[in-house]
Amino acid sequence: MRQLVECVANFSEGQQVDVIDQIVNAIDDVWDVTILGSESDVDHNRTVVSFIGKPDLIVEAAFEGIRRASQLINLDKHRGQHPRLGATDVVPFIPIEGVSMDDCIRLAQKLGQRVGEELNIPVYLYEYAATRSDRQNLADVRRGEYEDLKQTIATDEARIPDYGPSAVGTAGATIIGARHALIAFNVYLTSDNIDIAKAIAKAVRNSSGGLRYIKALGLLVDGKAQVSMNLTDYKKTPIYRVVEMIRREAQRYGVSIESSELIGLIPQDALLESAAWYLQMDNYQPDKVLEKRLL
Amino acid sequence: MRQLVECVANFSEGQQVDVIDQIVNAIDDVWDVTILGSESDVDHNRTVVSFIGKPDLIVEAAFEGIRRASQLINLDKHRGQHPRLGATDVVPFIPIEGVSMDDCIRLAQKLGQRVGEELNIPVYLYEYAATRSDRQNLADVRRGEYEDLKQTIATDEARIPDYGPSAVGTAGATIIGARHALIAFNVYLTSDNIDIAKAIAKAVRNSSGGLRYIKALGLLVDGKAQVSMNLTDYKKTPIYRVVEMIRREAQRYGVSIESSELIGLIPQDALLESAAWYLQMDNYQPDKVLEKRLL
Repeated sequence: MRQLVECVANFSEGQQVDVIDQIVNAIDDVWDVTILGSESDVDHNRTVVSFIGKPDLIVEAAFEGIRRASQLINLDKHRGQHPRLGATDVVPFIPIEGVSMDDCIRLAQKLGQRVGEELNIPVYLYEYAATRSDRQNLADVRRGEYEDLKQTIATDEARIPDYGPSAVGTAGATIIGARHALIAFNVYLTSDNIDIAKAIAKAVRNSSGGLRYIKALGLLVDGKAQVSMNLTDYKKTPIYRVVEMIRREAQRYGVSIESSELIGLIPQDALLESAAWYLQMDNYQPDKVLEKRLL
Repeated sequence: MRQLVECVANFSEGQQVDVIDQIVNAIDDVWDVTILGSESDVDHNRTVVSFIGKPDLIVEAAFEGIRRASQLINLDKHRGQHPRLGATDVVPFIPIEGVSMDDCIRLAQKLGQRVGEELNIPVYLYEYAATRSDRQNLADVRRGEYEDLKQTIATDEARIPDYGPSAVGTAGATIIGARHALIAFNVYLTSDNIDIAKAIAKAVRNSSGGLRYIKALGLLVDGKAQVSMNLTDYKKTPIYRVVEMIRREAQRYGVSIESSELIGLIPQDALLESAAWYLQMDNYQPDKVLEKRLL
């Protein structure tokens, strides 16, 4: 069976095209790794590069990106709106096919160790790879940013890195971890009433009593009420269950779902499982899909 | 973009395992061609081998299978319940990804020419590759079988092959063509009344006024009413449209869909398009699927 891991590396440079190109090329030069996308934000002064490949190669590609970024980016000179701790700020590994979250945790550890030892950069493991509960949440790890870390890393016990030195150079520190694939998905209602979108968002999201792996907001977009969502674990809270819950809640207000839209990419299993659910294919297994036999 | 063609080769040997193995191995030995499945039927004395690969390689693999079968199978000694014209009886090419029906017609012509010229076997092109309207239907081309063809090929104008000699050796003739992927799909109702299944089958199938690319029968399977179907062009008559039509017809009899089942494999686009339809993703495009970026 094919093994595929996605990596989403966040670099603290979003303005100098030649620097960004050199980092992306360092990743792309690793054989059999495919760049899915690269997005730079000038105000954030930050670039997010997504790439995918086999487990070992993806670690190699991430390492090459981090090494190049550590040579080209000086955090003492970096200014941007987005909080950051290092030249390579955050690197999550995401299981896509034929690998488990535990596999991705091991990849995070392997990369963390190499970055610590070979590049002499402090590494903090986060989310599913976290070694302490106060490092699960990315925002907690990044609190105070590079400038504060520089002052406190040598003395604050809470700042002892998982790998690498308790000392920060101009490449700062890097946060490495493992998380689920995220699906950004919006549902438009047959209404221009934002209050209905807000009420439905409140009903479906985890924070106010809804579905466990849903974050949701009610918005008005192009004159239409929209429920804007992030699905943070589509295997446990599947996309069809959210859509059908929104459909029922909308009905209560006398409105329907007009359409939905994906922002960015979606893992194919999220759609295949949805089709099997709606079509009521009780004997569905991924190996029923012709193309899965290929890989 | 990845190019994938499926080939489903039907060989007139379903009993001698060593002969079947040699033919399957001849196909499998072609680099980068994947065998999807091989099913032998002893009573039919016939084996169906499905394989998939890039356009040029799939022709090579089909040719190697035909060549091996022509060396190992003697139609003068072949007996079986299934009608057949040759050692390799029928070979359709099926567009799966990144290729059109026209591409598959060209593959059928290319293979037909090689089989005619290099193996000296008469070849008839059928279905989408047919050169005459009376050769579109496979059953028409096969009428009278090998025994009759042997007598008539030299004299009957209707029997002039598209490629190869107007003379039949012990390998018989081979029917080569292009067709759409076929989905075998059954829907179980919450009823044990076969009459309801028959009424619904009649409503949805093309032959009695229903959907263009649906063949359907009403059956009783394991004590449950079942609508058993073949979808012969899922791009034009999509699976979700059939399921929802069955759902509505069943409702009229006071029953529901209990579950559905796939027989064999399904091209992934048939499921991805179904998910996009049910989830109302108006902006869905195959390139929104993360794994499609890889190939």
